[in-house]
Amino acid sequence: MISQEPQITPWEAEAFVDYEKLIRIFGAKPLTDNEIELLRKVTGELHLMIRRRIFYSHRDLDKWIEAYISGRRCALYTGRGPSGHTHLGHILPWIFTKWLQDKLGVDLFFQMTDDEKFWHSEEKSYEEINAYAYENILDLAALGLDPRKTHVIIDSEDIAFLYPIAIKIAKKITLSTQKATFGFTDSTNIGMIFYPTLQIAVAYFPTELYGEPTEVLIPAGIDQDPYWRIARDLAPSLGYPKPTQIHCKLLPGLDIGGKMSASKPETAIYTTDPPEIAKQKVMKGYTGGQPTAELQKKLGGNPDICPIYKMYEMIFEEDDKKLNERYYACKTGKLLCGECKAELAERVAQFLKQHQQKREKARDYIEKYLIRTKFEEPRKYRTKR
Amino acid sequence: MISQEPQITPWEAEAFVDYEKLIRIFGAKPLTDNEIELLRKVTGELHLMIRRRIFYSHRDLDKWIEAYISGRRCALYTGRGPSGHTHLGHILPWIFTKWLQDKLGVDLFFQMTDDEKFWHSEEKSYEEINAYAYENILDLAALGLDPRKTHVIIDSEDIAFLYPIAIKIAKKITLSTQKATFGFTDSTNIGMIFYPTLQIAVAYFPTELYGEPTEVLIPAGIDQDPYWRIARDLAPSLGYPKPTQIHCKLLPGLDIGGKMSASKPETAIYTTDPPEIAKQKVMKGYTGGQPTAELQKKLGGNPDICPIYKMYEMIFEEDDKKLNERYYACKTGKLLCGECKAELAERVAQFLKQHQQKREKARDYIEKYLIRTKFEEPRKYRTKR
Repeated sequence: MISQEPQITPWEAEAFVDYEKLIRIFGAKPLTDNEIELLRKVTGELHLMIRRRIFYSHRDLDKWIEAYISGRRCALYTGRGPSGHTHLGHILPWIFTKWLQDKLGVDLFFQMTDDEKFWHSEEKSYEEINAYAYENILDLAALGLDPRKTHVIIDSEDIAFLYPIAIKIAKKITLSTQKATFGFTDSTNIGMIFYPTLQIAVAYFPTELYGEPTEVLIPAGIDQDPYWRIARDLAPSLGYPKPTQIHCKLLPGLDIGGKMSASKPETAIYTTDPPEIAKQKVMKGYTGGQPTAELQKKLGGNPDICPIYKMYEMIFEEDDKKLNERYYACKTGKLLCGECKAELAERVAQFLKQHQQKREKARDYIEKYLIRTKFEEPRKYRTKR
Repeated sequence: MISQEPQITPWEAEAFVDYEKLIRIFGAKPLTDNEIELLRKVTGELHLMIRRRIFYSHRDLDKWIEAYISGRRCALYTGRGPSGHTHLGHILPWIFTKWLQDKLGVDLFFQMTDDEKFWHSEEKSYEEINAYAYENILDLAALGLDPRKTHVIIDSEDIAFLYPIAIKIAKKITLSTQKATFGFTDSTNIGMIFYPTLQIAVAYFPTELYGEPTEVLIPAGIDQDPYWRIARDLAPSLGYPKPTQIHCKLLPGLDIGGKMSASKPETAIYTTDPPEIAKQKVMKGYTGGQPTAELQKKLGGNPDICPIYKMYEMIFEEDDKKLNERYYACKTGKLLCGECKAELAERVAQFLKQHQQKREKARDYIEKYLIRTKFEEPRKYRTKR
């Protein structure tokens, strides 16, 4: 998966975007108390990313939960464009997805789009990107995703699972649709042109695999929405349930205004960063604070535009009360940026230490996540002639 | 494989085209005594389709034969778009390919492009086209192609063999190249846009499978040439030998001027036609003869524009001397069309009877032709990380 370049992509430059406006542009719905209460009914409690509206908009989440309640088969789907090592911005939706998986016991289909990242990359070789796909699986393992219920599809190697579905999708999409949806031009390579069929195919794949209509919920950044609009449009004519979505906001990088991005590695915390390096990155980070401690005490800081505060809010402070205290301590000048950063740096370092230990252990059982080790290719299921 | 619609496609309407002109347009080379003598060196004798220049142009055939002589690994590649049952126009290059395989003992890779035919078809379902792929394999078996040396790749089901190569090809082809080469427009579906990567991938596949540079010769109609031009252009940068080609003329249909085509079933002889029906088709066929027997005796016929004569020349008369006698008997009015047709009808019916018996027997061992029953997917060969 990749941040596409559709006609409107404010998130390419901004993480502190007007998410209300994005919802309107994309025609999604804001997450309301209605869906949240429905979710609580099946999960018992609410994840911080729901309580704080980090996941903030959706399409048919209510219908997905109702399908789950009524006993229909349900599945989760998310993914990753494995162009490099994983950073905290990537794992944000995975943390939530793991929580959903734990609470609901449903299978997760996880797509590694090594093909697409190769097509999109200026300089990386296919072999390099394919190797990162395996590195990235280690992060899924370290986050504790259940290998019995987490099925990783590496496009270039597991294409046989998707291609029979992609064939039918491709027939229904013209070049002009692709151009309009993704902003492709005549100088785009034909891999990029074809690729959306594969991202869409995974949304239909569980129905093929299980041989029964399967309701798929996709937790992902809203930048992936163009794919799902096509997936929803085509689903009825291809005989699949419409995939449903829940969209998350993007984790800001440690500088001013942008999302955490591999293009600015000094402002992104990688899961493979040595903890001491990660600490330094946090300590050097931009904040919403005043230029001096004196001014901060006098005027207070602005947590609403502070990537350090956002790190607490989106990942590193589980306790709502403590988060609230931090917010007002900053606002009122009682909390200085140095102290706030030092505490975050320590939490990040602790997280990384544990994550990296689990990550290395996972090398011994990485194959348990690969779909090809668990299921036969779907051609085996299909009746022939 | 399919007759593409590049900018210049006279064969769409005509079988009696100016083949010299086509050679010039495509920048291929006419088959000369030089290549023919070289071929005789390795095959011992010459197939009628070479002696009569049914295979009439090429790209680097001489280099391919020299590679074969010098002991380098060589392979053959051809294919079929399985949109329906096979007719005599389809099997013409397969007959020659079988002969090459017998004489040289090389492996043949045979692509069944069920994906592309589905993308191209207005009305047929994927399942229907996929089923024809298996029907068409029966014809390969009936023609006697050696299952140990004939490896059929059905695109939709054997995609895993091709996709890792197709990924690298797709990155090097822009949309504008595709439009210029194949005449695609913005209303073309994105399956068609992507498909050429798969037809090209098979030309490189033997090198991946055997793990050594493999020289591939493609016997096929000249209408497939646009694919091979791209395949040859890209080969050096992707590290594969340039595929070589030998082009054949198209078998005319039994009416005036067109190639044998599924769009005019009454003028095409299918391998599945009951022999009596095939006889009737021949007897109703257009000829180069005069309107009446009297005029024929007086003025003679014109075998050069006669599809009945072409059937003898291209498939059904092995003996050059007898073919020559038939030609002049027609020209001088000694042979009447009814007699000539009746003899052909008998030969066609005999051929079909035997072919159909072998065809039905082949149902028991069809899987011996499938590449997936013989080789593991190439990802198993590739070193990873």
